[in-house]
Amino acid sequence: MIRKKAPVIPADETTIRGFSEAFFESVLDAIEHSPTDLDGLLGNLHEADIADIIERLPRDKRQIVLGHIPFERMGDVIAELEEGVREHVLQLLNPADLKGALEELESDDAADVARSIDEMIPEHEEGEGEDYLADYQHKRLLHYDEDTAGGLMQLEVLTAPPTQTVGETLEFIRKNEAEMPVKPGTIFVVTPQRKLLGTVSISRIVRVPFEAKLQDVMRPDPLFALPEQPHTEIVSIFEKYDIHNLAVVNKRGQLLGRITIDDILDVVLEDTARQQARAVGLNEAEDLFAPVLTTARQRLPWLGINLLTAVAASAVIALFEDSIAKLTTLAVLMPIVASMGGNATTQTQTVIIRALALGQITRQNAVELLKKEFLSGGYVGTLLALLMALGCWLLYGQPMLALVIAVATVANHLFAALGGYFVPMMLKRAGYDPAISTGVLTTTITDVGGFFVFLGLATLLLL
Amino acid sequence: MIRKKAPVIPADETTIRGFSEAFFESVLDAIEHSPTDLDGLLGNLHEADIADIIERLPRDKRQIVLGHIPFERMGDVIAELEEGVREHVLQLLNPADLKGALEELESDDAADVARSIDEMIPEHEEGEGEDYLADYQHKRLLHYDEDTAGGLMQLEVLTAPPTQTVGETLEFIRKNEAEMPVKPGTIFVVTPQRKLLGTVSISRIVRVPFEAKLQDVMRPDPLFALPEQPHTEIVSIFEKYDIHNLAVVNKRGQLLGRITIDDILDVVLEDTARQQARAVGLNEAEDLFAPVLTTARQRLPWLGINLLTAVAASAVIALFEDSIAKLTTLAVLMPIVASMGGNATTQTQTVIIRALALGQITRQNAVELLKKEFLSGGYVGTLLALLMALGCWLLYGQPMLALVIAVATVANHLFAALGGYFVPMMLKRAGYDPAISTGVLTTTITDVGGFFVFLGLATLLLL
Repeated sequence: MIRKKAPVIPADETTIRGFSEAFFESVLDAIEHSPTDLDGLLGNLHEADIADIIERLPRDKRQIVLGHIPFERMGDVIAELEEGVREHVLQLLNPADLKGALEELESDDAADVARSIDEMIPEHEEGEGEDYLADYQHKRLLHYDEDTAGGLMQLEVLTAPPTQTVGETLEFIRKNEAEMPVKPGTIFVVTPQRKLLGTVSISRIVRVPFEAKLQDVMRPDPLFALPEQPHTEIVSIFEKYDIHNLAVVNKRGQLLGRITIDDILDVVLEDTARQQARAVGLNEAEDLFAPVLTTARQRLPWLGINLLTAVAASAVIALFEDSIAKLTTLAVLMPIVASMGGNATTQTQTVIIRALALGQITRQNAVELLKKEFLSGGYVGTLLALLMALGCWLLYGQPMLALVIAVATVANHLFAALGGYFVPMMLKRAGYDPAISTGVLTTTITDVGGFFVFLGLATLLLL
Repeated sequence: MIRKKAPVIPADETTIRGFSEAFFESVLDAIEHSPTDLDGLLGNLHEADIADIIERLPRDKRQIVLGHIPFERMGDVIAELEEGVREHVLQLLNPADLKGALEELESDDAADVARSIDEMIPEHEEGEGEDYLADYQHKRLLHYDEDTAGGLMQLEVLTAPPTQTVGETLEFIRKNEAEMPVKPGTIFVVTPQRKLLGTVSISRIVRVPFEAKLQDVMRPDPLFALPEQPHTEIVSIFEKYDIHNLAVVNKRGQLLGRITIDDILDVVLEDTARQQARAVGLNEAEDLFAPVLTTARQRLPWLGINLLTAVAASAVIALFEDSIAKLTTLAVLMPIVASMGGNATTQTQTVIIRALALGQITRQNAVELLKKEFLSGGYVGTLLALLMALGCWLLYGQPMLALVIAVATVANHLFAALGGYFVPMMLKRAGYDPAISTGVLTTTITDVGGFFVFLGLATLLLL
């Protein structure tokens, strides 16, 4: 090991990152028995880890931990919390402390927390989050929708004029160290009117000759986003072109701010969680320890909708009650037909939803794709139908019953393919997120269709 | 606009990024009528966009486009393709061309494509992907599992000794421009034995005094990963600490390579897609235009498993065939009870699977969480039970039937909560990915449980 001299410049932040289950237990222990120990325990921890600890704590213990987070770190801790827990923590803090905490944050994080404050406050007082932001510029960020480029943007950017040399730029950065964004990443080359001309990454500027002008080493037609663009488009740009910074400009091409890749990573992870949650009628990032009644209230509407679809399926069965009375075997077999169709449609819709999200479906290939899904559904349905028919025949010794279940199975797989294809396509066209609402509709289609075809055919052919 | 002089240094890559539907149509047109136009059309396009075009093309048109991609860009195009389409393209290329294409790639991308080649080749010839890599170092990367830090790592890193000054480091970078990684990002400070001492980001090195030694400005206890660590852990590190580069070291602390945030973004997006696909028994990134038989063959096993669970539910119904014969209304109502339980369990399992993935469930809070889910299930179940009972009473005028359906609904919601809680917990403990296998098991539990409780209670109380 090399011996260290006293550092000339303070080294990079040196907080400990990560914690063990044993450490978490000592935090719990300190909360119960000696809260002052929390200062030491949390002192060296990264803000993201403190946020993690708060998320894992039952709600009644959180206040105690909050009391031992120093004022200047509170903002970062709040910014790192998941939505559900963040709302709980915001309620526990007093407005003055909260306002102070937000002043320590970079513009995008400050706006993000201010949005959470807004969401907690009843509709008619909307805009209250704004009051917590001291900086006028930061307030402006709140006007952008959260799910747009504007909502992801931060105002801290490093700009330079096109005629400045590489050497001058590097000298400027060194001299103005204190005012630099934490991670400048990219130099945005702009006119005096802030019109974006090009970009030079820091990785590039350390490699090109000092005397070169920025306009000669910059990427002259930089990628950019407009503030209204939905964040899914922004994610695609980052993913495709492996960039670390993206300029956000207004319609006149003037630089408003930038989006950084670490925020994009957070967005992608949050989005995935949110979509998975919403697809089953949950609030995005549910607080694990939300009160039972809150949890139940959030979950009920989606269950209610599903109850309606179940009732619809039941109504179809009710149509054929007489047939069932004559041949109760139908009641035994009917859930199989419906359930198989439901599973098949899930596969098709998963493929279609993803292809839609990636924009892979074009006017040219849409028909091709439908044909493929339909044929594949027919093929799979036929194989399963043969299996079912064989089983029925062996079990019940009724060839006609075997025929009925076979035909119903094939028909229901064809329904399933059509439903799995058309439902997400139509939802998308109507402006809904197919990832969220497809499931309920396709399940209804295959349930209703499955019961109808099976019981209907049975009534026609067997009774 | 500023007039540009002839550039001193070639500007950053200036390919056009993105393409319109109209552009895609002109590509289709060129394929049909004048393939030589493809050179011009694809010439200025970014490799990621060329990959996008290939993914959208029906399989029989892909070969023609491949013939118009210049040799030195082929590797990058292949690296950008989704798994399913990539395998198809690899089959279309001859081995010599493929080998040449891989030489143009950075180590991690080269290893990634070599892994795809491996996957296409029957088991007994495994290791063939290695033969396509010219560089011995690159071959070594193949020994790491794809889903580990080693599998994500690239070998191109910028290292420096601790006693080197900032000024010397910057001079070294400038002088050795040609050998630098495309995006150095971070300087890894190492001993002559490559033992990792610290890191200095490029964003930081342009801000500290020239005469400072690296050891005085570096982050002295840098985050690192071991090559065996699963990639989900690596993603968490990037997400939590907002880093752009992560060192990978061996057990002796020697630097092996690094992982970059743009690869992490790709991994997260791929992982999400893969998990969604696998949860419904699909191959990760299915080629939209795979032949019907391939698609059907891939989808059949999961449907087969689900058929078995449906048969299990049917077997329960069969137990009560006599009861149904006496009271066919039971056949009408039974799917409602089962379906409601299925939906409730989906909500609980979604919450638990996510909490497990984030490591939020600890020994301390596990019981608390179970209690919350159970109570919430009971509460929701009771509300829905009252609704169901009321509906039944109004519709059929049978108070006992209403009672039966109410009790069965509550019981099934409690089952649902327990299943949604314990199944993912046990799968995780047994080493399976709960996101993939939970659904099939919980559905079986709520189907079987739902039918059993409802029909059993009805038999006891009504008949």
